[in-house]
Amino acid sequence: MNLSTGKRVRLHRMMYEHGPANGTLMFLPIDQGLEHGPIDFFDNPDSMDTDWIYRLAVEGNFSGIALHVGLAEKYHKAYAGTVPLVLKLNGKTNLPPDDEAFSSMTSSVEDAVRLGADAAGYTLYVGSPSQDVDIAQANEVRRECERYGMPLIVWAYPRGSAVKAKGGVDSLYAVDYAARVACEIGADIIKLNEPVWNASTAGQMPKPYSTMEFSDEEGLRKVVRSAGRSLVLVSGGSRLGDEAAFRKAQVAMEAGCVGLIFGRNMWQRHWDDALSMAQRIHELMKGFAQ
Amino acid sequence: MNLSTGKRVRLHRMMYEHGPANGTLMFLPIDQGLEHGPIDFFDNPDSMDTDWIYRLAVEGNFSGIALHVGLAEKYHKAYAGTVPLVLKLNGKTNLPPDDEAFSSMTSSVEDAVRLGADAAGYTLYVGSPSQDVDIAQANEVRRECERYGMPLIVWAYPRGSAVKAKGGVDSLYAVDYAARVACEIGADIIKLNEPVWNASTAGQMPKPYSTMEFSDEEGLRKVVRSAGRSLVLVSGGSRLGDEAAFRKAQVAMEAGCVGLIFGRNMWQRHWDDALSMAQRIHELMKGFAQ
Amino acid sequence: MNLSTGKRVRLHRMMYEHGPANGTLMFLPIDQGLEHGPIDFFDNPDSMDTDWIYRLAVEGNFSGIALHVGLAEKYHKAYAGTVPLVLKLNGKTNLPPDDEAFSSMTSSVEDAVRLGADAAGYTLYVGSPSQDVDIAQANEVRRECERYGMPLIVWAYPRGSAVKAKGGVDSLYAVDYAARVACEIGADIIKLNEPVWNASTAGQMPKPYSTMEFSDEEGLRKVVRSAGRSLVLVSGGSRLGDEAAFRKAQVAMEAGCVGLIFGRNMWQRHWDDALSMAQRIHELMKGFAQ
Amino acid sequence: MNLSTGKRVRLHRMMYEHGPANGTLMFLPIDQGLEHGPIDFFDNPDSMDTDWIYRLAVEGNFSGIALHVGLAEKYHKAYAGTVPLVLKLNGKTNLPPDDEAFSSMTSSVEDAVRLGADAAGYTLYVGSPSQDVDIAQANEVRRECERYGMPLIVWAYPRGSAVKAKGGVDSLYAVDYAARVACEIGADIIKLNEPVWNASTAGQMPKPYSTMEFSDEEGLRKVVRSAGRSLVLVSGGSRLGDEAAFRKAQVAMEAGCVGLIFGRNMWQRHWDDALSMAQRIHELMKGFAQ
Amino acid sequence: MNLSTGKRVRLHRMMYEHGPANGTLMFLPIDQGLEHGPIDFFDNPDSMDTDWIYRLAVEGNFSGIALHVGLAEKYHKAYAGTVPLVLKLNGKTNLPPDDEAFSSMTSSVEDAVRLGADAAGYTLYVGSPSQDVDIAQANEVRRECERYGMPLIVWAYPRGSAVKAKGGVDSLYAVDYAARVACEIGADIIKLNEPVWNASTAGQMPKPYSTMEFSDEEGLRKVVRSAGRSLVLVSGGSRLGDEAAFRKAQVAMEAGCVGLIFGRNMWQRHWDDALSMAQRIHELMKGFAQ
Repeated sequence: MNLSTGKRVRLHRMMYEHGPANGTLMFLPIDQGLEHGPIDFFDNPDSMDTDWIYRLAVEGNFSGIALHVGLAEKYHKAYAGTVPLVLKLNGKTNLPPDDEAFSSMTSSVEDAVRLGADAAGYTLYVGSPSQDVDIAQANEVRRECERYGMPLIVWAYPRGSAVKAKGGVDSLYAVDYAARVACEIGADIIKLNEPVWNASTAGQMPKPYSTMEFSDEEGLRKVVRSAGRSLVLVSGGSRLGDEAAFRKAQVAMEAGCVGLIFGRNMWQRHWDDALSMAQRIHELMKGFAQ
Repeated sequence: MNLSTGKRVRLHRMMYEHGPANGTLMFLPIDQGLEHGPIDFFDNPDSMDTDWIYRLAVEGNFSGIALHVGLAEKYHKAYAGTVPLVLKLNGKTNLPPDDEAFSSMTSSVEDAVRLGADAAGYTLYVGSPSQDVDIAQANEVRRECERYGMPLIVWAYPRGSAVKAKGGVDSLYAVDYAARVACEIGADIIKLNEPVWNASTAGQMPKPYSTMEFSDEEGLRKVVRSAGRSLVLVSGGSRLGDEAAFRKAQVAMEAGCVGLIFGRNMWQRHWDDALSMAQRIHELMKGFAQ
Repeated sequence: MNLSTGKRVRLHRMMYEHGPANGTLMFLPIDQGLEHGPIDFFDNPDSMDTDWIYRLAVEGNFSGIALHVGLAEKYHKAYAGTVPLVLKLNGKTNLPPDDEAFSSMTSSVEDAVRLGADAAGYTLYVGSPSQDVDIAQANEVRRECERYGMPLIVWAYPRGSAVKAKGGVDSLYAVDYAARVACEIGADIIKLNEPVWNASTAGQMPKPYSTMEFSDEEGLRKVVRSAGRSLVLVSGGSRLGDEAAFRKAQVAMEAGCVGLIFGRNMWQRHWDDALSMAQRIHELMKGFAQ
Repeated sequence: MNLSTGKRVRLHRMMYEHGPANGTLMFLPIDQGLEHGPIDFFDNPDSMDTDWIYRLAVEGNFSGIALHVGLAEKYHKAYAGTVPLVLKLNGKTNLPPDDEAFSSMTSSVEDAVRLGADAAGYTLYVGSPSQDVDIAQANEVRRECERYGMPLIVWAYPRGSAVKAKGGVDSLYAVDYAARVACEIGADIIKLNEPVWNASTAGQMPKPYSTMEFSDEEGLRKVVRSAGRSLVLVSGGSRLGDEAAFRKAQVAMEAGCVGLIFGRNMWQRHWDDALSMAQRIHELMKGFAQ
Repeated sequence: MNLSTGKRVRLHRMMYEHGPANGTLMFLPIDQGLEHGPIDFFDNPDSMDTDWIYRLAVEGNFSGIALHVGLAEKYHKAYAGTVPLVLKLNGKTNLPPDDEAFSSMTSSVEDAVRLGADAAGYTLYVGSPSQDVDIAQANEVRRECERYGMPLIVWAYPRGSAVKAKGGVDSLYAVDYAARVACEIGADIIKLNEPVWNASTAGQMPKPYSTMEFSDEEGLRKVVRSAGRSLVLVSGGSRLGDEAAFRKAQVAMEAGCVGLIFGRNMWQRHWDDALSMAQRIHELMKGFAQ
């Protein structure tokens, strides 16, 4: 991947010193309070307590925890050294309509450096009418990441009415495009949603996507290729049953992804269930050492 | 809360050296002249005189007085050392429509430092279509606060048509979301309005909020939890009768808030009434030493 | 007023070394060529010649002359020391519609310093939909004025459809609000139009303004109070007859204003008439030494 | 005019060392390729070759040549010292609609300095809805011109639907206003179109313009006065017949303008015709030495 | 062309040390993944692998490879010295509508310097309603290119509804205008699409374009003249058959272009076909040594 020294040091920490520690990655994100509101914490009220989340990250042996500066400032100190920090740099609420989705900065790469983070997270809404502002902002972040040797993880999400009209945000067309955009603008790691084959909307996609029926694994394998040398993480998304969640993880790893970023599928479970899900995925990941 | 030395020194001044001085907070805001116009001063014409307000802040033994730079420059010097200054950094008038509510900067964190302030106040309109500009601006303020060790108090107000359509600005859904947003973007203290259960609009809120009937105290207790380690202040809002105002204060303290920020409920009363209300709340706060 | 040394030196020059020199102020503005176009110069074609205006400022013994950088650069040198300069920092034309009125910068506080000005003038359109940009820009100006010890005079004008719908730009409600906004954002001196009681639109104002019938002097006295420690100047506005103009001046001084800023009411008169009007007002001001 | 040393040195070069060299000015502009496209070069295909234009500027003994940075970088070196450079700093195409006309920067005053220019040219669209951005941008340019002693020539063009509704872009009302605006914002020289009396639209102008019938010379004389100490250049506009072009020049000089800026009226003629037109105007200008 | 030393050094590398090495240029662009998505890679799945593209650039002996920073960072190191890098500085996706086409920055000229690039590529959408932002951004890029001695290649593309209404993006009118704009704003090299004579829309163009029927070569020859001293590259556009592609190259060279930038017409062919196309064009270019 031709990484700078600083990026290599920090990626090494997440890939070989924490979590599965075999080159795979397993992140715990907790930015949903900003993105969706406290509504996501109802299933498991403990999850509203960021300390509880941190304990889960440590006990569950995650490769890193991803959150915004407000939580990092107030909670990370106590867990310094026990779990790597991925500082999420931008975000928005889901209160106003999503038509021109854009996430503005809540912190900077310099904040990430100051807080001892091992990566910076940036959300890019691929296809949004605000893409001009978004790409320009991403460029600033990329440059700062380059400057400080900070790995850049791009949350690459298709959005906007044009995307909806061409097959939807989870279509292979959209996710595949998002993977490539993130790669070309300089992501080291790309967080993607699993592309979904939806027979009823497939015809809206441009050819040849419109006729390319695919399994979950095939879809992911395609986007992993489009991501080039950028590594791919699969999002957990909303909470799934145990088998579905595990299956999602398995498919992702078999498709060539470097790992997972499961939030609600972890902390919307109660402590024991969350821990055992984490352990089960650890077992799975042993088989994908790189 | 893992505060920097500067933030700790300044918060200590407001929490343990002024006002109730037992870890609770009782602020006197006087930014309504900008936010609503001089119309708020008709009930008690003395309140138009910022000197009168300052005397009330000192005699009433408040933890701090919150105002904009114009008033701070011209009045604070005479009261230096007698009452901490919370410099309100941004604001707007209520003349144009509120649809894309956004408060631009009237001063900077550096001004707050220069004027010897012990905190900076920032209004964030959660849910406004202008949230992208607002969050970005808040990020600049947060960074400066971090840099200078200045505690950051966020006035977290839900706003905008989307909020109205989902239950309104005082719904638990909206206030709860606002609390969490302010926490994630780095508020040290969050000023909130008391969430209100309104049977007629409850159904507009997303589940499970739509069915969660709650008492005033339960509502506040919920948002205090969503605020995480950020401390919560309750706004007084428009003027209430003596018992209602006191009751609001009592409920706030019992719900776990760190204190109150009562403006119109103080200075729309005449001198003696305002002072006795302040004293009565002082008495109340003795029971909530932290 | 707790002014910095630099502001005090410069205000002293205008208040005690030029013009009436007894603490009152009498300014001659000549920015109408930008704001309204040369159309304002038809009544007295001499007024198109900025030298003529400068001679009037000197002969008429004004406290200062207010104009934009283009005129200041080309004409002020010859009058250095004979009349203080108020550099008007922002402006606009009245060609496009006024719905989102906003005046952008034509020069900077640093230009004012460089040109030896004794004050900087800034137009704020209170209530305009562009208030967010306006307040932010005013903040930059205020900060620079603070930095250089330059007194800040705010032309506080209500504007926009919301203002029109609530009683109009000259209503007491609007002017009163404008006075307070200018005060809170840091004006040292505020230029206001005289509020007017208009029975036919009074009902559009919010209570209690809607029922507060007032004389010219009462209206001004009210806004002077709302301005707090910021000093108030009354605009002359469009040309009045001799008695009406003098009466306006008299009312303003009796209402507690610090002075006047009469442009068209001076230079739309021919030389002798303009001078005698200036002298008559000088006489008046002798009675209001501060 | 109270010019700085640098401005005086550079203006002297254009007014007394090149061109008529008697205090009058005669500029050759070649920015039409950007403003209108290569369509302007069809009448005389040689004009597409910037070398040909430069030779005309030198042979025709112009006071300066006005063009954008791309041409200046690639062609001016060979003509260094033989003809002064006026670097045109901003521009636009005429492809999209003109409703919110605004010309963004194609180079900077610093580029002008670097390239040895003797003046900078800036287009201001007076009356455009974008005037706020335009005036602010002009302010930056003016400041840089002040800083580097670079004379500022403002192309002052009325534009926008409001202007159209009030008599049109060539009405005396509009051109007169444009002259004054350019003067107040700091132009050293103002380029204007000749105001035209149009009986059919005169009534749309505000009084007294609506009834002020005027000859070409009277119209120009009026705007020259409105420009104050800023010098006035008259644009040639689209190509005229020989007599009409010469007559335009003559009227401009008799009305008190400092000179002419004729582009299409020069280079849309073939070499010999262009040169003889230039010489004829040189003769004319001998009579207007200043 | 009066180039600075740095520009000359870098251009020399591309024109005389790589590719045909006789003063002609033959570039391989691979920014389509961002501009169109991975959809362009279906014809030849190998092309999704940037390593494959790089091998083609080296084996095919191209004058340079043009791509965005994400690919340059991760792939260029291995090919350092074997093929010059053209860093494409701005881009967009084709997901949202193209009405206000604008490409924001994905990297900077400084990045180009840091990565050892020999040119920077910038897309300018001539005629887009966003032209004001685009021209201003291009100005920044130009200035940085000047500063660092980096040749500037402008992708000059007509866009927007006004362009469509006047004959379309490939009309001679539009391409000719684009060539001139790029030249005037400072392009060293201009990438253009071949103008097309379309009888059915010709009448929409302004005169005399509307009646100027032309061959492919005549059209190109015209725009080469409009580009002045800026060199012209012809885009390959979407994939053509072997003869059509070769013919396009031949016409371009005969019309006086400096070279070609063929992407899809190269890498949408399989390895052997792509290489033999490259070699055939190399042969062609031998005849156009400069």
